[in-house]
Amino acid sequence: MNFEFPFGELPAVMRGPRVERRRVLVGGSAFWGTIVEAGAHAGRLRLDDGRLLDADAASTLPPVSPSKIMAVHISYSSRSIETRDRPRPTATPTYFTKPPTALNGHRGQILKPADCRYLNYEGEYAVVIGRTCRNVTPDEAWDFIEGFCPALDMGLQDFRDTDQGSMLRVKGADTLLPIGPGLVRGVNLFEQTLRTRVNGQVVQEAHIGEETIWGPHYVIADLARHITLLAGDVILMGTPCHSRSVDAGDVVECEISGLGCVSGTVVAIEAPRASALGVGHAPTDSPEVRRVALGFDERVPQWLQDNLRRAKSRGST
Amino acid sequence: MNFEFPFGELPAVMRGPRVERRRVLVGGSAFWGTIVEAGAHAGRLRLDDGRLLDADAASTLPPVSPSKIMAVHISYSSRSIETRDRPRPTATPTYFTKPPTALNGHRGQILKPADCRYLNYEGEYAVVIGRTCRNVTPDEAWDFIEGFCPALDMGLQDFRDTDQGSMLRVKGADTLLPIGPGLVRGVNLFEQTLRTRVNGQVVQEAHIGEETIWGPHYVIADLARHITLLAGDVILMGTPCHSRSVDAGDVVECEISGLGCVSGTVVAIEAPRASALGVGHAPTDSPEVRRVALGFDERVPQWLQDNLRRAKSRGST
Amino acid sequence: MNFEFPFGELPAVMRGPRVERRRVLVGGSAFWGTIVEAGAHAGRLRLDDGRLLDADAASTLPPVSPSKIMAVHISYSSRSIETRDRPRPTATPTYFTKPPTALNGHRGQILKPADCRYLNYEGEYAVVIGRTCRNVTPDEAWDFIEGFCPALDMGLQDFRDTDQGSMLRVKGADTLLPIGPGLVRGVNLFEQTLRTRVNGQVVQEAHIGEETIWGPHYVIADLARHITLLAGDVILMGTPCHSRSVDAGDVVECEISGLGCVSGTVVAIEAPRASALGVGHAPTDSPEVRRVALGFDERVPQWLQDNLRRAKSRGST
Amino acid sequence: MNFEFPFGELPAVMRGPRVERRRVLVGGSAFWGTIVEAGAHAGRLRLDDGRLLDADAASTLPPVSPSKIMAVHISYSSRSIETRDRPRPTATPTYFTKPPTALNGHRGQILKPADCRYLNYEGEYAVVIGRTCRNVTPDEAWDFIEGFCPALDMGLQDFRDTDQGSMLRVKGADTLLPIGPGLVRGVNLFEQTLRTRVNGQVVQEAHIGEETIWGPHYVIADLARHITLLAGDVILMGTPCHSRSVDAGDVVECEISGLGCVSGTVVAIEAPRASALGVGHAPTDSPEVRRVALGFDERVPQWLQDNLRRAKSRGST
Repeated sequence: MNFEFPFGELPAVMRGPRVERRRVLVGGSAFWGTIVEAGAHAGRLRLDDGRLLDADAASTLPPVSPSKIMAVHISYSSRSIETRDRPRPTATPTYFTKPPTALNGHRGQILKPADCRYLNYEGEYAVVIGRTCRNVTPDEAWDFIEGFCPALDMGLQDFRDTDQGSMLRVKGADTLLPIGPGLVRGVNLFEQTLRTRVNGQVVQEAHIGEETIWGPHYVIADLARHITLLAGDVILMGTPCHSRSVDAGDVVECEISGLGCVSGTVVAIEAPRASALGVGHAPTDSPEVRRVALGFDERVPQWLQDNLRRAKSRGST
Repeated sequence: MNFEFPFGELPAVMRGPRVERRRVLVGGSAFWGTIVEAGAHAGRLRLDDGRLLDADAASTLPPVSPSKIMAVHISYSSRSIETRDRPRPTATPTYFTKPPTALNGHRGQILKPADCRYLNYEGEYAVVIGRTCRNVTPDEAWDFIEGFCPALDMGLQDFRDTDQGSMLRVKGADTLLPIGPGLVRGVNLFEQTLRTRVNGQVVQEAHIGEETIWGPHYVIADLARHITLLAGDVILMGTPCHSRSVDAGDVVECEISGLGCVSGTVVAIEAPRASALGVGHAPTDSPEVRRVALGFDERVPQWLQDNLRRAKSRGST
Repeated sequence: MNFEFPFGELPAVMRGPRVERRRVLVGGSAFWGTIVEAGAHAGRLRLDDGRLLDADAASTLPPVSPSKIMAVHISYSSRSIETRDRPRPTATPTYFTKPPTALNGHRGQILKPADCRYLNYEGEYAVVIGRTCRNVTPDEAWDFIEGFCPALDMGLQDFRDTDQGSMLRVKGADTLLPIGPGLVRGVNLFEQTLRTRVNGQVVQEAHIGEETIWGPHYVIADLARHITLLAGDVILMGTPCHSRSVDAGDVVECEISGLGCVSGTVVAIEAPRASALGVGHAPTDSPEVRRVALGFDERVPQWLQDNLRRAKSRGST
Repeated sequence: MNFEFPFGELPAVMRGPRVERRRVLVGGSAFWGTIVEAGAHAGRLRLDDGRLLDADAASTLPPVSPSKIMAVHISYSSRSIETRDRPRPTATPTYFTKPPTALNGHRGQILKPADCRYLNYEGEYAVVIGRTCRNVTPDEAWDFIEGFCPALDMGLQDFRDTDQGSMLRVKGADTLLPIGPGLVRGVNLFEQTLRTRVNGQVVQEAHIGEETIWGPHYVIADLARHITLLAGDVILMGTPCHSRSVDAGDVVECEISGLGCVSGTVVAIEAPRASALGVGHAPTDSPEVRRVALGFDERVPQWLQDNLRRAKSRGST
């Protein structure tokens, strides 16, 4: 089929040289810059106006301003296996959305309301659209990609029982999408490894080329059948197995070789005022909520189970 | 409870005088104007620059530019009754989203791809947010509303079987949200009647005050528990019973007394190119699709059944 | 110098094949499409969703959504000659701005308030920025260009005496920038000819390659020395000689070979309400206003003087 | 006249209670909040999600996202006196623009390129538009104001000799508009005092009510005669006398009683790369540049001259 990979020839967005663009807040104003790839200043951030910064010295803003954010439910084989009793398994990708207000930057605060228990991490990569895209084939789709970013698709699973599958409140609350630190071109995505860490401990790991069920070109062609994708729009490409809950104070990271590492810290906030009045679906601790929030450890690959057990016995989690 | 209606005192957004703002395209440029409410020019559109137009002489643009569009699944009692075998009935409102690219204006073309059969209408009113809103009570929520618009929440039910409930492809395709013609303040929403017509025939009818399960103030307070609503954001407030499919050439209208009438014409387009390559979930004709697309005529109120039967015998549908 | 032209090798944005993108309003919704370049449908507009339209059947929207619009005062030799008694001639380009609210589409209505006399045309081409650009050299600047559009930089010269040179009210009023119909790549700008017509009569004409003083690459490098240019930003590249005033009912066109033709019709509107109260600088008929509005016919090239005289004797103006 | 002040009745935007809204970056995500006006937490920032912060603990973002920024040249009597030999004195206000890329936040870095000498401060207040506004009278204009902010209208006077009065490069370079920290309603602007400080030393001071030549209502009505003002648009209201140059390392503040204090630090950056190639107008040290950059100390009011002399003798400047 024409939308298979690996490819005879890599699409331009995955051919080198690597370019990483970041947007940072320096003293009240946002600036774009490029990570220096080689030489004495390798790893530092060269702002477009010429200033050279330690890449971590500035507040990193999301490197995207999407008009819409779409996300694939499941596109990794290990995740597909772990959730195989999902009510409706699918032969084609399925999608949900997150509102732009969910955007968060690298080193973001991920808010966990006092009445919620199950805030789950999902390490992912995001595809960023470069220009208006509608009615394209998978082959053509690569040309509409601006680049890729690491991302954390966080979810308040306490709201799993509401919204009839749209997951608006599970996935759509403010701060639930740390993304960045940069927007990267020139890296062969299918040779990269994704790792999610909680407090330094690896909790998800996947080789993207080996685990991917549907590539970005397929997903773009699928969505653009009926929906116009605009420059800046973001597609989250799903997570591998072992999404689990985190607590206030935990530091969550998603590192993708070649792309970079985005992190966030879970911060407790008080419950919403309207909740105290009985407004809306209350956070719930149901079997369905627990099924997703807690997952199935026995379906996680043995090597990851072993790693997690060893880490636990060392007391590092 | 503090979020009940009717109210002791009407909130400002529902107190007169009525003001209807429209945005129109006149020869390549968009202009805002106000409908003249009384006198010799009543019903005409006074552009802000002083020009007076026949309100229908210009192309009417959507009177909103939302960063996000949220929609209530069910908030009318007749719709709740009609869909009572829905898998997960709810004691609180549930929501899905539509991307901004779904926006369409009054007298829009509603696109129906050649491989789809079940394009359903849903007449609704939309609530438009006036300023940043987060963590408010229902009592406070009224102050964050800019106004109301008629809307048609169209859906390609052929995609009901995919997206696991998010309905991204059912409700999110381009053109599936005709909204307008104006953005209206100063009308008591709960005294108004909503009517959807297909080719002139009434197919939905509801008194908003009598049928509403959750008012806009409740819905805003519910969503703003976790999601920041921004000026311009749109909330679609659900539809009454008898959403049904329409075909190419059909003219669909949603008229709400006090607010106005938005219309759209169904236009056939060819199937997406990627579909021909086997990309993505194919439009499907399944029992679940038919359940929603075709509805349950016997659960529709008797008066509406009678009206529809009489119209049919007159041959007007 | 490295920013000279003609070039050894044409920059990508000027190398073929030609691509013209348009944004049109079809029944209330905006759609992007591409002009068919060859074959049975040459000249028609293929919307991205597959529909084929007569390019003129839809309302054409501006093909740009800039965050800022900058304009070169003088960049054509004939204009430089005509205005040679300008107070401050310059060895480098100088710029002013137009607010985004001045944008107008092809076949737009250009508003002329009742208290103004001197609405002048200036046929131009616009450069559209494709991605964030700061601190670049002229050589590099070409890569930041998305494409080119015909444009009419209209001006209410009655306000020449105010704003101390910023021309905010001369050039910034609503509708004073018809631009389009399309955004074009793949055309060698320096081989094209610009012609402005009033009611069909040629009133400006210039070969871009022969008359250009500073090319787009120079202008971008100049502006981006201190100002970040963002994707979508527009730079108007100046007009050749013989900018003159037009009246209500006049049809003004700017046609640039290879790029297309944008037109607008002058429409009279009433004077602003605040003007009647004595607010603000009144439209003025001063020597400086007349110097710019009426120009110097004797400094216009002889062939253009001859053309205009012949047309006048035929009564066509 | 109907646009005089003081007023019989204060417009709503100037009537209490005071409300100050701020937008801050907390760990990668932007949040809106309100300053607590009274009680134990007075002066702290209550984010909309309930969190309480020290107002200075977070990075403060500009509290506005304008589509355009307009500025009055001169609207203070002391400034009018100081610049009385300006070429074209005016009986009505005149305006220029700054591009949105010039926006900077409270505690911003104000960039001074290595080849520039004359970076001047101008302490001002900004008016923020609340909703679409066109063709209004001064009386009506108050209703279109969202609120007020302190601002620093910085200018690179080295470019005074170019751009023929538009001041695009003088006033429009990146970072030249620190604005904030908050957007304030409920304060009688005409009872407030504006003070600009450099390194703690007062260098400008004006009682707004006593010095204002044209109020915001007049200016809005003037601009909206021909230009549609959109929600979020910003109008800078001019500066009092004694705008002077500052150097790298200087801290500039504009404090307006009732509104708050915005500050910025001057930071040296290298000269643009294109300048080294000879592109564009070079920064210039001409008599006209010096006239504006250095001002006329002898025309500054005696009390301010005395203050400045005393401060100088104490060695604090």
